[in-house]
Amino acid sequence: MSQERGITPRAENFSEWYNDVIMRAELADYSPVRGCMVIRPRGYGIWELMQRALDEMFKETGHENAYFPLFIPQSFLAKEAQHVEGFSPETAVVTQGGGKELEEPLVVRPTSETIIYSLYAKWIQSYRDLPLLLNQWANIVRWEMRTRLFLRTTEFLWQEGHTAHATDREAEEETRLILGIYRRFMEEWMAMPVITGLKTESEKFAGAVRTYACEALMQDNRALQAGTSHHLGQNFAKAFEVQYQTAEGELEHVWNTSWGVSTRLVGGLIMSHSDDTGLVCPPRLAPTQVVIVPIWKSDEQRSSVMGVAGQIERELRASGVRVRLDARDGLKPGAKYYEWEGKGVPVRMEIGPRDVADQQAMVARRSGGKAPVKLADLVSAMPRVFAEIQSALFAAATERQEENTVRSVTKQQLIDLMEGPGGFAFGGYCGGERCEIEVKDRTKATVRVLPDPEFRSEPAPAACVWCGEPAVTEAVWAKAY
Amino acid sequence: MSQERGITPRAENFSEWYNDVIMRAELADYSPVRGCMVIRPRGYGIWELMQRALDEMFKETGHENAYFPLFIPQSFLAKEAQHVEGFSPETAVVTQGGGKELEEPLVVRPTSETIIYSLYAKWIQSYRDLPLLLNQWANIVRWEMRTRLFLRTTEFLWQEGHTAHATDREAEEETRLILGIYRRFMEEWMAMPVITGLKTESEKFAGAVRTYACEALMQDNRALQAGTSHHLGQNFAKAFEVQYQTAEGELEHVWNTSWGVSTRLVGGLIMSHSDDTGLVCPPRLAPTQVVIVPIWKSDEQRSSVMGVAGQIERELRASGVRVRLDARDGLKPGAKYYEWEGKGVPVRMEIGPRDVADQQAMVARRSGGKAPVKLADLVSAMPRVFAEIQSALFAAATERQEENTVRSVTKQQLIDLMEGPGGFAFGGYCGGERCEIEVKDRTKATVRVLPDPEFRSEPAPAACVWCGEPAVTEAVWAKAY
Repeated sequence: MSQERGITPRAENFSEWYNDVIMRAELADYSPVRGCMVIRPRGYGIWELMQRALDEMFKETGHENAYFPLFIPQSFLAKEAQHVEGFSPETAVVTQGGGKELEEPLVVRPTSETIIYSLYAKWIQSYRDLPLLLNQWANIVRWEMRTRLFLRTTEFLWQEGHTAHATDREAEEETRLILGIYRRFMEEWMAMPVITGLKTESEKFAGAVRTYACEALMQDNRALQAGTSHHLGQNFAKAFEVQYQTAEGELEHVWNTSWGVSTRLVGGLIMSHSDDTGLVCPPRLAPTQVVIVPIWKSDEQRSSVMGVAGQIERELRASGVRVRLDARDGLKPGAKYYEWEGKGVPVRMEIGPRDVADQQAMVARRSGGKAPVKLADLVSAMPRVFAEIQSALFAAATERQEENTVRSVTKQQLIDLMEGPGGFAFGGYCGGERCEIEVKDRTKATVRVLPDPEFRSEPAPAACVWCGEPAVTEAVWAKAY
Repeated sequence: MSQERGITPRAENFSEWYNDVIMRAELADYSPVRGCMVIRPRGYGIWELMQRALDEMFKETGHENAYFPLFIPQSFLAKEAQHVEGFSPETAVVTQGGGKELEEPLVVRPTSETIIYSLYAKWIQSYRDLPLLLNQWANIVRWEMRTRLFLRTTEFLWQEGHTAHATDREAEEETRLILGIYRRFMEEWMAMPVITGLKTESEKFAGAVRTYACEALMQDNRALQAGTSHHLGQNFAKAFEVQYQTAEGELEHVWNTSWGVSTRLVGGLIMSHSDDTGLVCPPRLAPTQVVIVPIWKSDEQRSSVMGVAGQIERELRASGVRVRLDARDGLKPGAKYYEWEGKGVPVRMEIGPRDVADQQAMVARRSGGKAPVKLADLVSAMPRVFAEIQSALFAAATERQEENTVRSVTKQQLIDLMEGPGGFAFGGYCGGERCEIEVKDRTKATVRVLPDPEFRSEPAPAACVWCGEPAVTEAVWAKAY
C-alpha cells in the first residue's frame, strides 16, 4: 500500500512529491471517473475543520446558508454574455432524465450565479429585503482538461456566497469584507500567508465588474489562487431582472457579490508546509492533533504504560484536544512514528516505562523539536504547544514567501526569475493588455494581482516592467497553478 | 408575499396545507428546474441542526466522513443486477462534457454503492483494514415523476453510510446499530415516534439482502419512510470484488451495509407537529429557539424596553440559546407574533413597559401556553422550558400515532381503515407476495415493516389478515408517502 512507498523528494520532482504526500497521508485517491477524486477521511477531516471555521466567520458577519439546485437550465447560463462565454466550454451536460431525452439540456452547476439570481428576482421586492446575504456549501463540476488532486478536479467542493445590496458601495464593502475573512482564515488557520489585490480584466471572473483574490506562494514558487471575491455590479441583476423598490418608491436593480473557496485550499495547505517525510498540518486544521505512542517490551510494562497512556488520552480529549492513542499490537514504535509523521499529526507523545517512572511523556513536534513534559502539565501545555507550532509554521511560510519575492523587477530580472526559480515578482505595470499577454507568452507568468495598498512597494514603481511606459499601478507576477 | 397568504386548514386539504406551511415559514421554494427545490435559510437551518446531531452520533460510534464522486460510469450501475433494475429508470445522465460527447455516459449518483465499493476493493486488503466505517453527506438525483417539497424531489440532500465487515454477523449488528441511531434521533430530536422493522422482499433496497426502516405516521395518517438501513450481504462485494485476507490467510468477500436519511426528514418534521397557523418545530431542531418581541408606544418606553430586551438577548445567547430580537420598526407586535408563529419559533418573549416595571417577560409557547417569568430567572428557565416543549410534542405525536393504530385488524377492517381515515394497521401476514399485491391493489396500503419485537402485538396474530392462512409474521400496513 501507499505507506510502503517512498516519497519523491521535492527537489527531484515537486509534482510527484505532491501526489506522494497525498497518498502517504491518505488524504485522497483517484477515482474511476475521469478527473474526479475521492476525498478520504483524513483529507475530508481537514476540509470539515476548514468548513467549520469559515462557516462561523460567515455567520458572525450576518450570512445564512441555503441550498440551490445542482442543475441549471442551459438557457440561464446564456443570459449573462461574459458568463456563458467563460463557463460554456467547461460544462457537463445532462441530456437524459428518467430514460427520456430532455427538452432543454441541464448544465451541472459550474457556479451558481444564474440559478441563484433567478430566485433572488422572486424574493427581493423592496429595500427592506436587502441586503440578502446567503452562502451555500456545494459540489461543483467544471470539465477540466488537466486535473490534479485537490488543485483542479472535474468535481470539487466549495462554498459560494451570493449577496444582493441596495448600493454599489455596500456591494463593494461586502466584497472587501469577504476578502478580509478569506485572508484571515488563510493566515490564522492555514498558516499560509497571502497577497491580496485586484485581478486584471483578463483574469477576473466571467461576469464580474471586479475580482479580488488571495494569492499564496507554494514551495515550488508557483502561485496558488486560493480564494476570490467578486463585485458583480448590476450585471446579473439586469440579466435576471432582480429589482427592488427604494424607500422613495423607485425601482432599482440590486448590486451583487459572489465569492468562494474550495477544496483547492487543502492542496494549498499541503504545498505550503509539507516536507519530504510527508504531510505537515497546522494544529488548528489537523483532524488528529496528538497521537500517543505507547512503548513497552514486557507485559508488565505494557500494563503500566497503557494505563498512563489511556489516562492522558482521556484528559486531553476532555480538554478539547483531537487525540488518538495508537495501541496497535504487532507494530513497532518506529513504524508508528513513521506512519503518523507521514500523516501530518502535529504532536506525538511517546510514553515508555522510564517515562512512566519519571512521570513524564516525550513530546515530539512534527515540524521539529522534542522535549519531555511532566504528565501533570500535559493538558495545560497543549494550547501553548499548538499555538507555537501554528505561529512557527506561519513564520516559516512567510519567510519563504519573502525570500522568493523580488521587488522592483526589471524586464530581464522578470524573465530570468520565471525561467529560473520562480516566485513573486513585483513591478510597475502600464495596465495594457498587450504587456500582460507578452509577459505571459515569454515567461508563462501572469499578473496574479494588482496588490492592495499594504502589499505595495515604496516608492511606487514609475515605469512598466515590460514596455517602459509610465506605470499606472503595481502588479505581482508569478507562474500559477 | 407568502406571509400575506392564508394557510389552507389541514382538514380541508392536507397537501395544500403542507405547501402553505413551507411557504409561510420560508423553508423552501420551487425552482425553475423540474422537480428540484431551493432550500431557504430557515429550512436549511433545520437540516444543519439535523446534520450536526446525526454526524455526532455517527462519529461517536466510530464512523468517519469521506466524499466520493457525483458521477458514476453507467457500466458500474449494471454490475449488481437488482441494483441496476431498481435505479436505472430514475437516473439523470450526463452525455456531454467539455463540449464533447462522452464515450461512456455518466450517471448522476442515485445512491453511491457502486462507486464506493469499487474503491473499497482498492483499499481493503486484509482483516486489519476491517471494519471500514464511512459516511458521506452528499446530494443525490433521482428522476421522480411526481415531486413534493422535501418529501420527493429530483435532487435531495442526504447522508449515506457505507461499511465493510469481516463477517455476516458484524454487518448485521452494524445495520441494527444504525437503525437504533436513526430511531433515537427521530424520537429525541425530531420528537417523532417511529415503528422500526424489516421491509418485505418487494419493498427492500435494490441490491440488499435485508432492509430495515423507521416508519412514522403523519397527521394525515399516511406513513413516511423516514430512514433505511440495509444489510447488503456479499452482493456488492462479489460484484466489485471486494475481498480481504483473513488472519488465517484465506481470501473472503467482505459484508457490506449502507444506510441513509435525507432532507425528507424536514418534511416528516413539518407533518408531525405543525398546525393550521404554520410550522411547529421542536426546540432541539429550531434554528431560532426564542424570539423576543419588544412592545412600546412612546420613545421613552422604547428606550427602556429595548434596553431590557437587548440585555436578555445577550444573556440567552451567552447561555447557548439560539435567540433573535425582533426590533423592527413599523411593524406591530401582533404582526410579529403572527410571523414568528408561522415560522415555528418555539418560544416568544413579549416585553412591554409593564413587564419592565414588574421585572418580568411574558413567555409564550408556540405549541400552547403563556406565563410570566421573572427576568432574573429567564436564562435558567429556558432549558426546562425547551425540554417540556420537546417532550410534550413527542407525547402528543405518540398519542396521535397510538390513536390511529389498529391492532389485530380483520380483512374488512383493513379495507375500511384504508378507505377511511388511514393509519397503521397491525395484522398477521402469511409472508406471501400475492397477499401483499392484493392488499395494495385493493387498499393502496403497503406493508411498511414487519415490526421489531418491541412493537409486536401480544399475543402474536395467528392468521394472515388477507388469505386467512397461518401467519408467519406480523405486518404493519399503511398508505405511504
